[in-house]
Amino acid sequence: MQPDAPTVQGALIDAAHRFLGADVRVIGASRTDAGVHALRQTASLSIAAPLDAVAVRGALNAALPPAIRVLSVVEAAPGFDARRAALGKRYAYVVDTGVVAAPLWRRIAWHVPASLDLAAMRTALAALRGRHDFSAFCAAAGTAAPPVCTVHAVHILRRRERVAILISADRFLHHMVRNIVGSAVEVGRGAQGAGWLREVLASGERARGGPTAPAHGLVLVRVRYPR
Amino acid sequence: MQPDAPTVQGALIDAAHRFLGADVRVIGASRTDAGVHALRQTASLSIAAPLDAVAVRGALNAALPPAIRVLSVVEAAPGFDARRAALGKRYAYVVDTGVVAAPLWRRIAWHVPASLDLAAMRTALAALRGRHDFSAFCAAAGTAAPPVCTVHAVHILRRRERVAILISADRFLHHMVRNIVGSAVEVGRGAQGAGWLREVLASGERARGGPTAPAHGLVLVRVRYPR
Repeated sequence: MQPDAPTVQGALIDAAHRFLGADVRVIGASRTDAGVHALRQTASLSIAAPLDAVAVRGALNAALPPAIRVLSVVEAAPGFDARRAALGKRYAYVVDTGVVAAPLWRRIAWHVPASLDLAAMRTALAALRGRHDFSAFCAAAGTAAPPVCTVHAVHILRRRERVAILISADRFLHHMVRNIVGSAVEVGRGAQGAGWLREVLASGERARGGPTAPAHGLVLVRVRYPR
Repeated sequence: MQPDAPTVQGALIDAAHRFLGADVRVIGASRTDAGVHALRQTASLSIAAPLDAVAVRGALNAALPPAIRVLSVVEAAPGFDARRAALGKRYAYVVDTGVVAAPLWRRIAWHVPASLDLAAMRTALAALRGRHDFSAFCAAAGTAAPPVCTVHAVHILRRRERVAILISADRFLHHMVRNIVGSAVEVGRGAQGAGWLREVLASGERARGGPTAPAHGLVLVRVRYPR
């Protein structure tokens, strides 16, 4: 929710209010910057009425704008909280490396008209795997939680002129994926060597890294929960 | 060009006028309905100034809106006309078969929440290959040119919940791909058998076929020219 801007959470609360006639709290697993997309965000809400899950999905989708869709609804254990129960998340970041920006990709890819060295980027990104202090890739130092995350997997793939960087971790700091991608692209275009990401990570200083990649290339792919 | 609506041709003429300071005729290989996309449309224009092709591309892109991009510019033989010289075109039509419409696909896919029988659709579409009178799939009977086209290839592919139908032909009639797709989907959802498309084609009657699929699922993939 934001005071003066439309949000996914706000739209879900409005939609739930419209069919239930009551105020409902909706908890999303992940808060994202404006312009970030999601293939599968997860949210929890608690309703008193004994409604069928498919009926709830239909009612929510009928009230939501077309840019937001509830893909599935499942009943959870009492007290389930989509944010607290999450074990981890996976993000994808899409870079359009074509000389000319592809119009059909312009809303979901960052245009970097350069031939990126994927092997160098893969080596650089491998240094992020495991449990580290990610202060060097965090926008706001000094937030409450300690800036330690466990990165479970980093993959980089190319398909024609598009390059996707996928990162799975137990948690993500503010702007973390966008800062990692901005730095990885510096390596890919040859401005920095493959060992540079490891050095930036070890420094703990945001100022040592590359620029923050724009929000619109980032996609929340999924949120992971216990079985 | 349309009197009261923005068009790709109009935007290209404006962009060319802006950097050349002169009126330029721009000929597109293909006219499409509003809402149809193109991955690679081809257009020709004739300019008096001896300009480098890469410089022309840069100047046009700098003046075009981001939804339209010139991917490459090449010098053609004198008198080349993108429309008359075309040997054929390939279109793709994307159907989103998910129960819930995927928001990231909503601008380029027709949402048909049904499990489509691709084998039946493939059999049905195979009947269109070759040289036929396509009146049964043409919106406006009685246009000047005879309604005969040669379909070189028809393919259908599935990737997760998206189904793509690709059709290559020497020429296409008004609404031809959209009418073929609307009918093929009737077969895919089991409302008609796999032999139905052949019957519709042989009838020559538009009224015998399925509905016209919406424009926004259609993409012009490429235009073919002599070597």
